[in-house]
Amino acid sequence: MQAGKPILYSYFRSSCSWRVRIALALKGIDYETVPINLIKDGGQQFSKDFQALNPMKQVPTLKIDGITIHQSLAIIEYLEETRPTPRLLPQDPKKRASVRMISDLIAGGIQPLQNLSILKQVGEEIQLTWAQNAITSGFNALEQILQSTAGIYCVGDEVTMADLCLVPQVANAERFKVDLTLYPTISSISKRLLVLEAFQVSHPCRQPDTPTELRA
Amino acid sequence: MQAGKPILYSYFRSSCSWRVRIALALKGIDYETVPINLIKDGGQQFSKDFQALNPMKQVPTLKIDGITIHQSLAIIEYLEETRPTPRLLPQDPKKRASVRMISDLIAGGIQPLQNLSILKQVGEEIQLTWAQNAITSGFNALEQILQSTAGIYCVGDEVTMADLCLVPQVANAERFKVDLTLYPTISSISKRLLVLEAFQVSHPCRQPDTPTELRA
Repeated sequence: MQAGKPILYSYFRSSCSWRVRIALALKGIDYETVPINLIKDGGQQFSKDFQALNPMKQVPTLKIDGITIHQSLAIIEYLEETRPTPRLLPQDPKKRASVRMISDLIAGGIQPLQNLSILKQVGEEIQLTWAQNAITSGFNALEQILQSTAGIYCVGDEVTMADLCLVPQVANAERFKVDLTLYPTISSISKRLLVLEAFQVSHPCRQPDTPTELRA
Repeated sequence: MQAGKPILYSYFRSSCSWRVRIALALKGIDYETVPINLIKDGGQQFSKDFQALNPMKQVPTLKIDGITIHQSLAIIEYLEETRPTPRLLPQDPKKRASVRMISDLIAGGIQPLQNLSILKQVGEEIQLTWAQNAITSGFNALEQILQSTAGIYCVGDEVTMADLCLVPQVANAERFKVDLTLYPTISSISKRLLVLEAFQVSHPCRQPDTPTELRA
């Protein structure tokens, strides 16, 4: 491991890790991945070593510039402030508000309600319905909000932090068999983003810890 | 209602609304409150009028400068960018990262798991335990993180966005009978903040929609 290179503690399938991987790719930041398998050994995020690093026992965590940052949006905002090119937040404060509103809607209003630890708590019988409810209720709102913010992407025609949240959440929706035809705006924006290189190299099917059978 | 005055759609007991009320008070922004009672009439957030305003059917929502912003942290970041004094984010990017990390830990990792709509979904029998689990698991992590970030307040000695998230979350913890003696750092920071005027005027017991029996 090279000294000075940022280290991302990540899980290939974690949608929050994917957000950060896209940011790192877009900004051309070279980094090392330390895979934390959220399933194996009862969850490697519960190991003493990892808990000492991140007491929330979650990925992603980024070590960079001598500090350790948890929480995907806090990490992305730090990257934006210290490596501003290309920008992931527009210059206009009103548009920045739209970007953060959409990002928070997904990162605070959808993902936490359908993540692995919550689904474990609600139990196997209802977890699929539970996850679908969380996603559809958030997507119903998001589809409507995008009518007034979207251009080619979530907010206007530039890729922003909101798009970094959208694509991984759409992937979760697909995993939980949500009917995406109900969300034509969400779906088409996601499709346009998925062809971009930064979204492809950061994709869960192309990570160092992606199991062979899921590689593409 | 005066033309041009910001309008906050708020519920006295909503911890996310309280965060924004503190920001408005600290920055000395005069505003009108439109109360949205999350309980009455089956929840006024579900009314057609309110859904048209905020498709997420949540408070807070702020109308300001000709735009409508949802999501408390997106609102606070907008206020910070357009009304920078007094600052709620430090100047140093590394400290800003700590502030956002703590804010997101609470706003994304604790509050969404114990809010009204989730507690309804998990059912009356287990909702107290459910809420306690969400808060204690977040507070266990936060207590540890604060050891390396806190001064008088959550990050250093100035009031930041992290503190705006902390105090309302501690109030929720009290409501759900979480044993706060387990979290001495969280408790003492919260107590120091509660004596500040901006935290007092924005307190749930002093809002236009606070029921008489809960007023103080």
